[in-house]
Amino acid sequence: MENTQSKSQTPLYEDVARQIIEMIDNGTLPVGSRAPSVRSLAVQLKVSVSTVVAAYRLLEDQGRLQPRPQSGFYVRALRRENVEEPLMSRPPETASAVTVGDLRLLLLTEFGQPGIIGLGASNGAVSDWSIKAVHSLMSSISRSQPLLSASYPPPAGMATLRRQVARWYIRAGCKLSPDDIVITCGALEAIHLCLRAVTQPGDAVALESPTYWGILQTVEMLGLKALEIPTHPRTGPSLDALEVVFSQKLVKAIVLIPSAHNPLGSIMPEENRRQLVAMVRKADIPLIEDEIYADLVFEPPRPRSCRSFDEGPSSQSHVMVCGGVSKTVAPSLRIGWCIPGKWVKEVTRMKAWLNIAAPTLPQLALAQFMDEGGYDRHLRKVTSIYRRQVERMSELIAEHFPRDTRITRPQGGFLLWVELPEIMDSVTLHDRAIQKGVSICPGVVFSATGKYRNCIRINCGLLWTPEVERAIPTLGKLIAELIEAHQNAATEPGYDATQC
Amino acid sequence: MENTQSKSQTPLYEDVARQIIEMIDNGTLPVGSRAPSVRSLAVQLKVSVSTVVAAYRLLEDQGRLQPRPQSGFYVRALRRENVEEPLMSRPPETASAVTVGDLRLLLLTEFGQPGIIGLGASNGAVSDWSIKAVHSLMSSISRSQPLLSASYPPPAGMATLRRQVARWYIRAGCKLSPDDIVITCGALEAIHLCLRAVTQPGDAVALESPTYWGILQTVEMLGLKALEIPTHPRTGPSLDALEVVFSQKLVKAIVLIPSAHNPLGSIMPEENRRQLVAMVRKADIPLIEDEIYADLVFEPPRPRSCRSFDEGPSSQSHVMVCGGVSKTVAPSLRIGWCIPGKWVKEVTRMKAWLNIAAPTLPQLALAQFMDEGGYDRHLRKVTSIYRRQVERMSELIAEHFPRDTRITRPQGGFLLWVELPEIMDSVTLHDRAIQKGVSICPGVVFSATGKYRNCIRINCGLLWTPEVERAIPTLGKLIAELIEAHQNAATEPGYDATQC
Repeated sequence: MENTQSKSQTPLYEDVARQIIEMIDNGTLPVGSRAPSVRSLAVQLKVSVSTVVAAYRLLEDQGRLQPRPQSGFYVRALRRENVEEPLMSRPPETASAVTVGDLRLLLLTEFGQPGIIGLGASNGAVSDWSIKAVHSLMSSISRSQPLLSASYPPPAGMATLRRQVARWYIRAGCKLSPDDIVITCGALEAIHLCLRAVTQPGDAVALESPTYWGILQTVEMLGLKALEIPTHPRTGPSLDALEVVFSQKLVKAIVLIPSAHNPLGSIMPEENRRQLVAMVRKADIPLIEDEIYADLVFEPPRPRSCRSFDEGPSSQSHVMVCGGVSKTVAPSLRIGWCIPGKWVKEVTRMKAWLNIAAPTLPQLALAQFMDEGGYDRHLRKVTSIYRRQVERMSELIAEHFPRDTRITRPQGGFLLWVELPEIMDSVTLHDRAIQKGVSICPGVVFSATGKYRNCIRINCGLLWTPEVERAIPTLGKLIAELIEAHQNAATEPGYDATQC
Repeated sequence: MENTQSKSQTPLYEDVARQIIEMIDNGTLPVGSRAPSVRSLAVQLKVSVSTVVAAYRLLEDQGRLQPRPQSGFYVRALRRENVEEPLMSRPPETASAVTVGDLRLLLLTEFGQPGIIGLGASNGAVSDWSIKAVHSLMSSISRSQPLLSASYPPPAGMATLRRQVARWYIRAGCKLSPDDIVITCGALEAIHLCLRAVTQPGDAVALESPTYWGILQTVEMLGLKALEIPTHPRTGPSLDALEVVFSQKLVKAIVLIPSAHNPLGSIMPEENRRQLVAMVRKADIPLIEDEIYADLVFEPPRPRSCRSFDEGPSSQSHVMVCGGVSKTVAPSLRIGWCIPGKWVKEVTRMKAWLNIAAPTLPQLALAQFMDEGGYDRHLRKVTSIYRRQVERMSELIAEHFPRDTRITRPQGGFLLWVELPEIMDSVTLHDRAIQKGVSICPGVVFSATGKYRNCIRINCGLLWTPEVERAIPTLGKLIAELIEAHQNAATEPGYDATQC
């Protein structure tokens, strides 16, 4: 049914363009080669000449083909391939309190606003059918078993969903029982409960740098300190740095996003995971592993959870896994889970005292969606869409942002981390962009120490529309204006560069 | 539709019995009077003689009628009218840490178990139609607006629901704007957020004694201390005691359940509310008002919220109102709200950092349920059912429990607080009862100081079945056995009463 739907909704010329891109990507049409003539392609694909012309125009707009007079269309080198990646981060070596909460709340409020292109959110919304499927399961379950909802759900969550999560984690390399799992209201709540279970106010925790601002917020809310670890944009946190942190006993816990990191899109290599788990076991320090994007990596197989490298029973594990479906099925369901290892009793108790339990019906519907294979099918569909959108967004940024911009090469998820020229203030850029109807996420919120002021995070998970395409040139123009204003100020009489 | 359904499901003789009870309750048939003869009533109500006989047998079983040979049936005095109420509580005068969490978690886990008569829960489940109605609204909303669920809900909650809550609070005497309201995952989460916003670990907070164990749990989780206030089973906490607490600056906040208290069922008089609000304003101490049972009081009008006595704009108020629909519509929805007064910004931020927001769809459905008048109609229906069930349960307890038992006279909700003879250990009673398939809530969990060991809380909100009727005689037998065992032990040689 979805296929029919998607075919009937996509114009034919877009289908043709997609086929050409596939030929470019798989090497059939290498960079510099001449694309088939309009006429021959029309015959070959059994479409009209005007359809092929429309497809080639689209590919020209997207920077994939370049027309040469009297000669036809040629495959262009991708601009983004000439753009550098960010370097390994170098955060301060001491732990600090976290205090930029108000900006984060402002951002969170903006994300939901109608009329704003939400490039600042981290919201995978390319397809609404998984939401429809889960909602429809909710309807049928509520009709067939209304009394299930007449009582409080158990604190650890509905057994049917815990069974499905345990089954799902086989592909993450983990042998789990439903009793190892606690269902939460989203993955952030899971991280909150884990940190509560293993820390006291005033303790320090190690984090990647940059890292998801929600984690920093939790650290602030619990009165903890953040120790940021140098982090590579492809392979994640430096194990050497962590070794020092552990040996000097600088932290009480560590919170990482090893799979399709937010905001970097990095995947920690298997060997690093193995080593890291050995380190946390030796140091007797809990590793809180945020797996919220792990089901969205571009190249199968799905990465093994760090938990899978911790041998022995789950009830002895130092790895506390946190996950959920906000990035895959729908954020509005607010369903996450926690696999707290040796702290399962503490986390269950805290979940109960916090808000008793997660709502019943979404849990039952999600369990059925997973059981019937809907979740798996959905993932296969969306990851290829996200991959394509991340590539297209990188192209647009390469084209419209200043030359010395750096862009990550995400290996999963739908986020891009963009390093703008040093002089850029992304909070100012954010304020200007909102007035133009575009939200971005300024880099400062990804650090406890005010770093990354010249960085922004861009969401590529939106429903792809012409407005999204136009948002990047709009941002590019604002950036150019801000740079020009900065340069003019620098050359004005009386300007003191040291005060900049 | 509901009427038809309920008529077709209730046997005719129960309808007849209900009519007789109404005549007793409204004084048409006073205590001691002779009920109409079987034959005359059959003619009058146009039912068969055997139906009237069945109805009279039921009323005899329920202790409402007493047969006298050759004379007919007579109206009995209610046993519960001869049973005393508990006295004003007398908790210790110093604040203490809270630490009986494991017992509470065990209870919470039991509540959801199939095959257990959940007299230990606090779960109003007499009718499933409100759940069905809300679920059906969820279905239609998800069909008509699927994309609403493709993004994160705003941290404060969906505007439509906040508008409805603001409108609803007009009958609580409050003038609110939607911006004064934060939607939460249940009322307990609202209390948690309020306490986080206004206290620091180590602070003391004033509570009723006994009070809802979830509040004590939150106090424990946040590292606070509990100062229990002497509390009257009809009118609530002693204002004199609070005056001393405020003047000596012993607490940083106060958490009360002024309307249909859990577990006492008390309603704080309006004059006390007015005085209390003046006191908290003068002392500059936030009053957290748990209103979760406020829509379930037996005698209209619904009590005015303490907030309504705090003049001036909501954004200046010292009263932080917490409420929700877990006791009215369905606990499985996990929807609550907070009206944090002058701390609205802090509470919104903490809600965002805790778990981003409450799920979208249940919020929208509940808003529509309230808007269409469904919530109001539902309340009118269930409160009369709860009132009847509370009375019936009191009768059963009066009949089957020891003579010196004391029972509260709830003015709303569906809970009874039962004071058993001093020597009873309700934790032991709980353990024995669970083996017989009946859960109760032992009194110790309602105190920070281990008080109320001889008390239990009984849920009258269950779907009323013959199993529920039989659970109280079962408990009565267990209590008698425990008392006998105690007395035997006391008369055994070598027994030292001082060690009891």
